[in-house]
Amino acid sequence: MPRVPLDLAALAAAVPTPDEEARAAARERQGRLTKPAGALGRLEDLSVDVAGWQGRCPPAPFVRPRVLVVAGDHGVARHGVSAYPPEVTAQMVANFLAGGAAVNVLAARAGATVRVLDLSVDGEVPGAPADVTRHKVRRGSGSLDREDALSPDEAERAFAAGLAVVDEEVDAGADLLVPGDMGIGNTTPSAVLVAALTGVEPVRAVGRGTGVDDVGWGRKVTAVRDGLRRARSRQGDPLGLLACVGGADLACLAGVLVQAAVRRTPVVLDGVVVTAAALVTSRVAPSARAWWVAGHRSVEPAAALALADLGLEPLLDLRLRLGEGTGALLALPLVQAAAAVLAEMATFDEAGVSERG
Amino acid sequence: MPRVPLDLAALAAAVPTPDEEARAAARERQGRLTKPAGALGRLEDLSVDVAGWQGRCPPAPFVRPRVLVVAGDHGVARHGVSAYPPEVTAQMVANFLAGGAAVNVLAARAGATVRVLDLSVDGEVPGAPADVTRHKVRRGSGSLDREDALSPDEAERAFAAGLAVVDEEVDAGADLLVPGDMGIGNTTPSAVLVAALTGVEPVRAVGRGTGVDDVGWGRKVTAVRDGLRRARSRQGDPLGLLACVGGADLACLAGVLVQAAVRRTPVVLDGVVVTAAALVTSRVAPSARAWWVAGHRSVEPAAALALADLGLEPLLDLRLRLGEGTGALLALPLVQAAAAVLAEMATFDEAGVSERG
Repeated sequence: MPRVPLDLAALAAAVPTPDEEARAAARERQGRLTKPAGALGRLEDLSVDVAGWQGRCPPAPFVRPRVLVVAGDHGVARHGVSAYPPEVTAQMVANFLAGGAAVNVLAARAGATVRVLDLSVDGEVPGAPADVTRHKVRRGSGSLDREDALSPDEAERAFAAGLAVVDEEVDAGADLLVPGDMGIGNTTPSAVLVAALTGVEPVRAVGRGTGVDDVGWGRKVTAVRDGLRRARSRQGDPLGLLACVGGADLACLAGVLVQAAVRRTPVVLDGVVVTAAALVTSRVAPSARAWWVAGHRSVEPAAALALADLGLEPLLDLRLRLGEGTGALLALPLVQAAAAVLAEMATFDEAGVSERG
Repeated sequence: MPRVPLDLAALAAAVPTPDEEARAAARERQGRLTKPAGALGRLEDLSVDVAGWQGRCPPAPFVRPRVLVVAGDHGVARHGVSAYPPEVTAQMVANFLAGGAAVNVLAARAGATVRVLDLSVDGEVPGAPADVTRHKVRRGSGSLDREDALSPDEAERAFAAGLAVVDEEVDAGADLLVPGDMGIGNTTPSAVLVAALTGVEPVRAVGRGTGVDDVGWGRKVTAVRDGLRRARSRQGDPLGLLACVGGADLACLAGVLVQAAVRRTPVVLDGVVVTAAALVTSRVAPSARAWWVAGHRSVEPAAALALADLGLEPLLDLRLRLGEGTGALLALPLVQAAAAVLAEMATFDEAGVSERG
């Protein structure tokens, strides 16, 4: 497939604004539903967002929510920053494909389907179908503390893969996207990206990931510091930053997040990896964030820093630190509930209920 | 139907402990599922609770969650403490029966069914079926700032109605209960009950309810202060307190909350009215709280005070202030998700995934 060079400015310009007319109609309708105005709190705001995303009031339920779990390995994981060995990434991809992981269970409960994408797993997953491997960029990203995670060309290809995957999914009918992540060590590049873009010191951005011990945590802070030093000259260059200290999985997620907005498809953000990618995307296309809702607040400190920078308030705060899209999937019923309330409740007139005295 | 005198001590003694063996098995199984231990945060604790409630690990999905919306009017609502006129209570009961209210929409989304109970609506609801009106105690409870809300006999009958309704529902197959409330003015007795049992001053317990203005809020604080003065001698007597400053709806909810525990049926708590009733119930049967999960934190300050006293951390905090059971219904998918994760995820062994290094 011939590749068109990326024009990030054109991509940013292609991000539409949610439908302001539908949003206004949603606000007006919320005031006529049989409940005190504002009594459903954030659910009412969310219903206004849904109307704006769909460009219609009342909105419809989302009928094809789609999870995109982007998997990749990270060279830095070979240097003791994680509680788990790197081979777990490929094993978990196999687990996703077999339906045994948390993301599979929670997607089924939330009425969503799961697609796994191997962008940069360090190995082959036996039996992985073509829609998993089609966009693979390399085997493992470089160790960000000492080398570029990706070449400039690989970063472009990974980002473009995110654009292509969204096109594939939206063309197939997906009406809401839940990007997720899998990759041993992937909270380390996430922390570097967030620290680089928010300016906080390494120690404030680094968490325990999957549960690393004190010594491993110290190694992780050191790696983040070294990555930040390497990234210093790339802060105004989102793709360059992803190449320097991100990885193919993170670059792909950034592409997913901007193209979802271009394709008028809302996204529920998950944990620290997806949120770090969203922060990078916001530097490419600031208006894309109008198409995102924050599903939850991960216990990883970089997630809260990124959400604060994005001005997004998470729907859930359940002390999750799993990734895969799980936190976003737990929030998805709230998005569906918001749409249902706005579409299905009776108005004061319809129900013959008196308004406030 | 002849009425057996209530023996609260016997009722308290009949509350079982959730199954400790199933809880231990759930904790052990969580450690073998294909995710880092603890990575699903509160969802893992909740899955342990579900296993303990059901007495089995892995647990099953809840297949017949049942909402019980207890409706009642309050004399104090005639004295300007609410933004809405009292006739709205009966109108909203009709709206519930017609399926047009928020509780109907959210119950349908969460896979729950709704039963409405007219305990003390000040009027008749045209066409209300017998299962709605069967337990009615009176038309409107007394104005708690100046008279007892109920006679001692009415308080017993309302409480016993709660016991009877739970028996009816559990006998019919309900496996999880969501008590809800409807009643213009009902946040005022709720605030009095919470202030009486936690010892806070009126101003800290009183919120805006459905959205009363500053002048109405001042009247509400005065009514709460007057109610508290009347309730002073009843603090060690839960049924006496409900008679003095509660109401038939609140007494019924207190009965529901204890009998659910007796019948080993978990309850998702909703907003300030249900939580105030739960606080009273905890003074009847402290061990009942092991069968409750707090669905959300209402913006009504008395709800947070009651939850803190009960030692319950809410699952959601979405600035809701509607009641009806709506906040609990928004949390119900999290309870189902917790059960599903524990029951359906693969273990490390099953999936061939390496454990931590």
